[in-house]
Amino acid sequence: MQSISTKHLLGIKDLTTNDINLILETAKEFKDVINRPIKKVPSLRDVTIANVFFENSTRTRLSFELAEKRLSADVVNFSASGSSVKKGETLLDTVNNILAMKVDMVVMRHSSPGAPHYLSKHIKANIVNAGDGTHEHPTQALLDAFSMQEKIGDLAGKKIAIIGDILHSRVALSNIFCLQKLGAEVMVCGPNTLLPKYIREIGVKVEHNVQNALQWCDVANVLRIQLERQQIKYFPSLREYSLYFGINKKMLDELNKEIVLMHPGPINRGVELTSDAADSHHSIILDQVENGVAVRMAVLYLLAQQN
Amino acid sequence: MQSISTKHLLGIKDLTTNDINLILETAKEFKDVINRPIKKVPSLRDVTIANVFFENSTRTRLSFELAEKRLSADVVNFSASGSSVKKGETLLDTVNNILAMKVDMVVMRHSSPGAPHYLSKHIKANIVNAGDGTHEHPTQALLDAFSMQEKIGDLAGKKIAIIGDILHSRVALSNIFCLQKLGAEVMVCGPNTLLPKYIREIGVKVEHNVQNALQWCDVANVLRIQLERQQIKYFPSLREYSLYFGINKKMLDELNKEIVLMHPGPINRGVELTSDAADSHHSIILDQVENGVAVRMAVLYLLAQQN
Amino acid sequence: MQSISTKHLLGIKDLTTNDINLILETAKEFKDVINRPIKKVPSLRDVTIANVFFENSTRTRLSFELAEKRLSADVVNFSASGSSVKKGETLLDTVNNILAMKVDMVVMRHSSPGAPHYLSKHIKANIVNAGDGTHEHPTQALLDAFSMQEKIGDLAGKKIAIIGDILHSRVALSNIFCLQKLGAEVMVCGPNTLLPKYIREIGVKVEHNVQNALQWCDVANVLRIQLERQQIKYFPSLREYSLYFGINKKMLDELNKEIVLMHPGPINRGVELTSDAADSHHSIILDQVENGVAVRMAVLYLLAQQN
Repeated sequence: MQSISTKHLLGIKDLTTNDINLILETAKEFKDVINRPIKKVPSLRDVTIANVFFENSTRTRLSFELAEKRLSADVVNFSASGSSVKKGETLLDTVNNILAMKVDMVVMRHSSPGAPHYLSKHIKANIVNAGDGTHEHPTQALLDAFSMQEKIGDLAGKKIAIIGDILHSRVALSNIFCLQKLGAEVMVCGPNTLLPKYIREIGVKVEHNVQNALQWCDVANVLRIQLERQQIKYFPSLREYSLYFGINKKMLDELNKEIVLMHPGPINRGVELTSDAADSHHSIILDQVENGVAVRMAVLYLLAQQN
Repeated sequence: MQSISTKHLLGIKDLTTNDINLILETAKEFKDVINRPIKKVPSLRDVTIANVFFENSTRTRLSFELAEKRLSADVVNFSASGSSVKKGETLLDTVNNILAMKVDMVVMRHSSPGAPHYLSKHIKANIVNAGDGTHEHPTQALLDAFSMQEKIGDLAGKKIAIIGDILHSRVALSNIFCLQKLGAEVMVCGPNTLLPKYIREIGVKVEHNVQNALQWCDVANVLRIQLERQQIKYFPSLREYSLYFGINKKMLDELNKEIVLMHPGPINRGVELTSDAADSHHSIILDQVENGVAVRMAVLYLLAQQN
Repeated sequence: MQSISTKHLLGIKDLTTNDINLILETAKEFKDVINRPIKKVPSLRDVTIANVFFENSTRTRLSFELAEKRLSADVVNFSASGSSVKKGETLLDTVNNILAMKVDMVVMRHSSPGAPHYLSKHIKANIVNAGDGTHEHPTQALLDAFSMQEKIGDLAGKKIAIIGDILHSRVALSNIFCLQKLGAEVMVCGPNTLLPKYIREIGVKVEHNVQNALQWCDVANVLRIQLERQQIKYFPSLREYSLYFGINKKMLDELNKEIVLMHPGPINRGVELTSDAADSHHSIILDQVENGVAVRMAVLYLLAQQN
């Protein structure tokens, strides 16, 4: 049997193309599992997984929790609110305490970029990064790639546009790394104020006109405006953003070609996407959510084999 | 085998008398189950249930969770605090996301009347309304009816007084519908400011004197003063309420008849009920709580058979 | 088979030395269990345990939850935030409601000293005190004793110094009772403002010089400065505390003897302990955490045999 080359899933940057392909193929098998009447497999019986969320994220936590339960793992949830973190404990002490209770894997979300990487140097359990600030969110990128492949096949040579708030997104960077490793061409599109400065140095096209981006791409992955992270209040305003970068169904229909519309959720309906676009036949947004459980099952399963 | 005529439990209003009787009879069997040393049945193995609470409710959530676990369902809990709801996502998107993860049933509490009804028109999973604002709370009405039947038998022709804050209660309306369908006579009793305007149009007696209500009824279902919902601060004050509408043990004893005292909890001791009344032999308040688990098992079991 | 002499674990004060020894021996067997690849035993199948935390405590709650799951119990968590407690319900009503749902055991943390004792007089289920204010925290004392025995053997005649904020600690009193019952000599060491007034009446030595305490003892159990509980702001300040009572590795190394360093966590690194001390070979801090799960399994298992 093939195995993954890493003990932790910290970011897409650290995965080989083989690793990515192995995860995506394994996820295909698990997708069959969760569509059967009996959705559970005993694969991770006697594995204890702690979901350690220092930042709230209901949908990602729920997706991991369902993946873990369908693998028959024992699951405990730890959230930072009201925890010893507030009593002045260090991150490493908190996690070491959880691990001392014989926890085998830690799924962690943290607001600080690099937090899971730091931890991985000091602990024995497998770590899965469920988002570290605006840095990486590797399982999201993997489920996005899985959903694209399912719809348009092999991604080599395919054109993917990532549209919206690249700067405050934890999804963009992981997506770019993942798509590049799978041979796709990547474009980012958004106002200059929502693009990170390093964007021109990582091999992606940059476009400021959303019509041009849609015309160019096979897949449009539209990111949400991270209202809660945004420091720059003056430009663009939500109204300006939706006027210049918002996507509606008419724009997609008039392209006169097949285009796949994606969004990692939660959607700000009427801002980055109109409702008619989000709910159109172009959209695979709910497939992404379904595939998330299968991809996370694959990641947890493959990492557990490393022990 | 008999089956229930509905796919969702949105409110008592939509149930037939046959449905109600079927639920109550099924609950009787499940009450036997939870009183055995082995409290679990495998009925809902491989059914995944999400408890989606947009409003806090520890006791109702706990009762549903225990019912689900005793049916061997897989359970995930979702609470609105810190969720994507706060990031501007619509209710339908939130629930569709949960369902895309292959969740079979949704138990939902929401502050807006009609929220579960709206959802039921757009999603495939079974929905159980665990309280929608001040509108309906159907499982509470069913467990109340179950508890009354257990104590005084067939409810046809029996006299039930619902006493207290009818206006802000999510329990009153469901109770009235349920009792009427089972052939009972219903009276509501409270100050005019705590009765809804439509109360005289739905076939119940209205009484403002609590002594008269107690004299009349076989069962007194005393509701709590919903301090946290009350907008009208001036009348009655808590002190006035307890003076004019509060019930104590002496009042019950002096009736010189059998009377059953109920309360959906949490009790404001010293306001609507004195402690000696709540803890008296008239009270079946803790039976109501116990029966809640059995009734919820019956509802979940019967709805799951519809799929 | 031996059995424990009590139905509840309210405090160490109520345990006999036999009880303590039985718990510690049973914990040894469970420690073997949780170090096997298959960490679960079916001992408490069909026992439902509610973790009722009126005060936040992630690490203690997690440790109990893992202990319960490894015993195959059904687990429900209840936290006071957003619960009926906020709606004015009494403690006894809240717990009676939970118990009416056929819960067999209650693990409870509460901010009021004596809360679990009060409850134990009114309810049938087993109660485990998981901390009542600054009064007792019996499972912490038992896991501390277990960890000491594991390191230095029989505690009879051994010298244990408890160093730090004795006044605001829920750990100190339980530790003193437990160690005395096991025949150890106990010293407390800290500034006068952080010692309770009754301390000289319960048979412990009192020392204000941390060097003397370290010189005297076989085991130093260092407590955390309970910043969040402290009312007295003027003395000692954190800087003064760490200057006069803080322990570093050099101090331990220069003792020229075996000394065991313990801490119940969470550690304020740089206040009561420097990092080099906490992470030194003297420290058994993470063993304490691991042993916590085994000791809690033993307590729950032995109490369940009483029913």
